Amino acid sequence: MKGNVIVGQSGGPTAVINSSLAGVYRTAKDRGAKKVYGMMFGIQGFLDEQYVDLSDYIKNELDIEILKRTPSAFLGTCRYKLPAIHENKEIYEKIFEILNRLEIECFIYIGGNDSMDTIKKLSDYAIVTGQPQKFVGVPKTIDNDLALTDHTPGYGSAAKYIATSTKEIIRDGLGFSYKKSLVTIIEIMGRNAGWLTGASALSKGEDCDGPDLIYLPEIPFEVDDFVERVSRLLQEKSTVVVAVSEGIKLKGGRYVCEASGGSDYVDAFGHVQLTGSANYLAGVVRERIGCKTRAIEFSTLQRSASHLASRVDINEAFMVGGAAVKAADEGDSGKMVVIDRVSDDPYQCATGIYDVHKIAND
Amino acid sequence: MKGNVIVGQSGGPTAVINSSLAGVYRTAKDRGAKKVYGMMFGIQGFLDEQYVDLSDYIKNELDIEILKRTPSAFLGTCRYKLPAIHENKEIYEKIFEILNRLEIECFIYIGGNDSMDTIKKLSDYAIVTGQPQKFVGVPKTIDNDLALTDHTPGYGSAAKYIATSTKEIIRDGLGFSYKKSLVTIIEIMGRNAGWLTGASALSKGEDCDGPDLIYLPEIPFEVDDFVERVSRLLQEKSTVVVAVSEGIKLKGGRYVCEASGGSDYVDAFGHVQLTGSANYLAGVVRERIGCKTRAIEFSTLQRSASHLASRVDINEAFMVGGAAVKAADEGDSGKMVVIDRVSDDPYQCATGIYDVHKIAND
Repeated sequence: MKGNVIVGQSGGPTAVINSSLAGVYRTAKDRGAKKVYGMMFGIQGFLDEQYVDLSDYIKNELDIEILKRTPSAFLGTCRYKLPAIHENKEIYEKIFEILNRLEIECFIYIGGNDSMDTIKKLSDYAIVTGQPQKFVGVPKTIDNDLALTDHTPGYGSAAKYIATSTKEIIRDGLGFSYKKSLVTIIEIMGRNAGWLTGASALSKGEDCDGPDLIYLPEIPFEVDDFVERVSRLLQEKSTVVVAVSEGIKLKGGRYVCEASGGSDYVDAFGHVQLTGSANYLAGVVRERIGCKTRAIEFSTLQRSASHLASRVDINEAFMVGGAAVKAADEGDSGKMVVIDRVSDDPYQCATGIYDVHKIAND
Repeated sequence: MKGNVIVGQSGGPTAVINSSLAGVYRTAKDRGAKKVYGMMFGIQGFLDEQYVDLSDYIKNELDIEILKRTPSAFLGTCRYKLPAIHENKEIYEKIFEILNRLEIECFIYIGGNDSMDTIKKLSDYAIVTGQPQKFVGVPKTIDNDLALTDHTPGYGSAAKYIATSTKEIIRDGLGFSYKKSLVTIIEIMGRNAGWLTGASALSKGEDCDGPDLIYLPEIPFEVDDFVERVSRLLQEKSTVVVAVSEGIKLKGGRYVCEASGGSDYVDAFGHVQLTGSANYLAGVVRERIGCKTRAIEFSTLQRSASHLASRVDINEAFMVGGAAVKAADEGDSGKMVVIDRVSDDPYQCATGIYDVHKIAND
C-alpha cells in the first residue's frame, strides 16, 4: 500500500465496534499505509471535513488493546443515507475531491445494512467515473440481521449481556417466590429480528431454567394464548419470566404495544406515546390474572455494555476490520467482509468476502 | 459454641447477600457449631418450618467461595413484619418452640431496617421470657440507609453497577451527538435515599464527564428549573445526561411521576398506572425543548447484577456475617453488626456492634 486509508463508523454502536476500528488501523499500518484517517461521525461528518489522523490517538500496542475494549463508537457515528448518484452528483464530487486530496486508497466503513448502502454507492460511483479508491464494508450490528455472514460482530456481546442479565433477573425473582406469584416480562431489542430476544435462552443451564416463554417478532403474537400460557405456568410455579422482543406484532401486523386503545398513553401535553411491549403485557397480566408483575427493558445497555463484551466477539470484530483493509489493498471494491463458520466443534470462523450489492438495503 | 446456629435472609436481595450467608456459615463452623440451619424465605418460611441444614449444600471451601458470588438470595427472603409481642404471643411461642427443638444458640438475620425489627422483637421476647438464644442482625441493603453503620453491604456493588452503566450510556450518547441534541434521563432506585442516584457521579473520571445533572429524593424537585438547566446545557453540548432518583418529589411532597394529570396513564383496563420519573421527565423535555430523548430505568438489575459485584463489598459482607456469629456466641443479643471506617487512605474498615433498638424501624 502506498497511499492512505480512511475508516468510518456508522449506525448504532456495539460493544466491539471499536475493535473493528483497531483491526483496520493495525492492518493498514502493517501493510504500509502512510496515514490512517478516521472520519468523525461517519460519512456525514466526512462531508463537513471532520476527520482525524488516528496516529494522534494510537501510539503503541497498548493503545490498540485499549481501543479494542473501549465502549461506544470512538469516532462517532451517523445515520446518513447518501442520495442516489443521479439525484445529487455534487455530493459525490465533494466526497471524491476530499478522498483524492487526502490520497486515500482504501475507504473502510463499519456498519450494518444502511451503511453497506454507502459502500455500494461510493464504489459504483468510483467505477463509473474511473476513480482509483477501493471501498469495503465491515459488518457490525447487534441485531445479527446481515445477510450472507454467519453472524455479525456486536451480536455476541449483546447476547452475552442479555443472557447474563436474564439469568440474574430470574434468580432475583426466585428469592421472592414464597407464597406469592410474580410474572416478570423482559423487553429486548430487535424490532424485526428475534436473534437478541432468542439469546435470553442462553441463560438456561444447570443453575437456571431460563425464561419460561420467549416471543420473537417473526411470529404473530396472540394475547389470549399468552395469558393462558402464563396462567398455566403459575399453577406449577410461583415465578414466571417471559422474554419479548420490542417488535412483537399481532396477526394484522400492528405492534403489540399499539394493540389497545388504552395503551396509546397521552401524556401531559397531549402527545401520544407508546408504552413498551413489556409494560403493556405486564398490565394485561395484572388485569387478567391479578398477580404481581415487573416489566424490565434492557434498553441502550444491550449495545453499550462493554463491561460484558465477549472476548470471541472482540477478536472477530478485530479480524473483520483487518480483513477489509487486506481485501481493499488487494483490489476488492464494493464488497463486505463476512464471517464464515468453518467448524462448530471446536468453534472456528474465518473471514470471507461478498459483493455488497447482495447485502445492502435499497 | 455447643449448640446450633440458624440464619435467615430478608428483604430485597443484593449482589452480596449470599456472601454474608457464607460468612455466617464459616464462622459458625469455625466456632464449633454442630449444625448451621438456613431458614428458607426468612422468618415467614421459618414459621412454616421451612429450613435446611446448610451442610447439605456447602461441602468444601470452593462451595463457600461460590456461595459468596452467587446472585440473588440463596435461602430466599420475605417481607414479613412480626406483630408486637403483646398482640400475638402465639407466634412467638411457636418460633421459640422450633428454636428450642432445633437447639439453636444463635439466630442471625441478614437484612435492612425492617429485618432489624425482627431481631429487636425476638431478643426482647427472649429476655422477657428467659430464653437462652442470642439474636444478632447483619446489615444488608443496596439503599445504604441503615443508621450507625458507615455504609451497608450491598450498596457498593449496586453503586458499581450504576456507575459502570451510567458511563456506558454517556459514552453511547456521545457517539451519536453529531448535529443533533439528545437528552438521556436515567432512573435509579432509592425511593427516599439518594445514595444510589449519587453513585452515578462515580462514572466521572478522565474518560467521562459523568452525568450533567443529578436529582436526589431528599431535595424538592422543580420542573421549571430542571427544564431551564437542561436548555442551558444544550447550548453548550449536544448530549445531556440526567440521573434522577425514582423517588424525586415536588415541594408539596408528591412524587414527580404523579405530578401531572396526564401522567396518570390509564391502561386498557381503566387502571391508573404511574409512569416512571424518567419517562415523565423525558416527555417534559420533548415537549418544552423539542429534542430527542431517552428514558432508561436500571430496574431490578441494580440489585441483582452479581456479574459486577464489588470485591470489597463481597469481602465486607462476608466479614459482617462472621462478626454477627462471633458476637452472638460471645453473648451479645438484640444487636446489629456495623461497619466502622477505620481509615480513608488507605481504605480500611472494621466491624462494630450496636444496640438494634437504635436502628430498627418501629
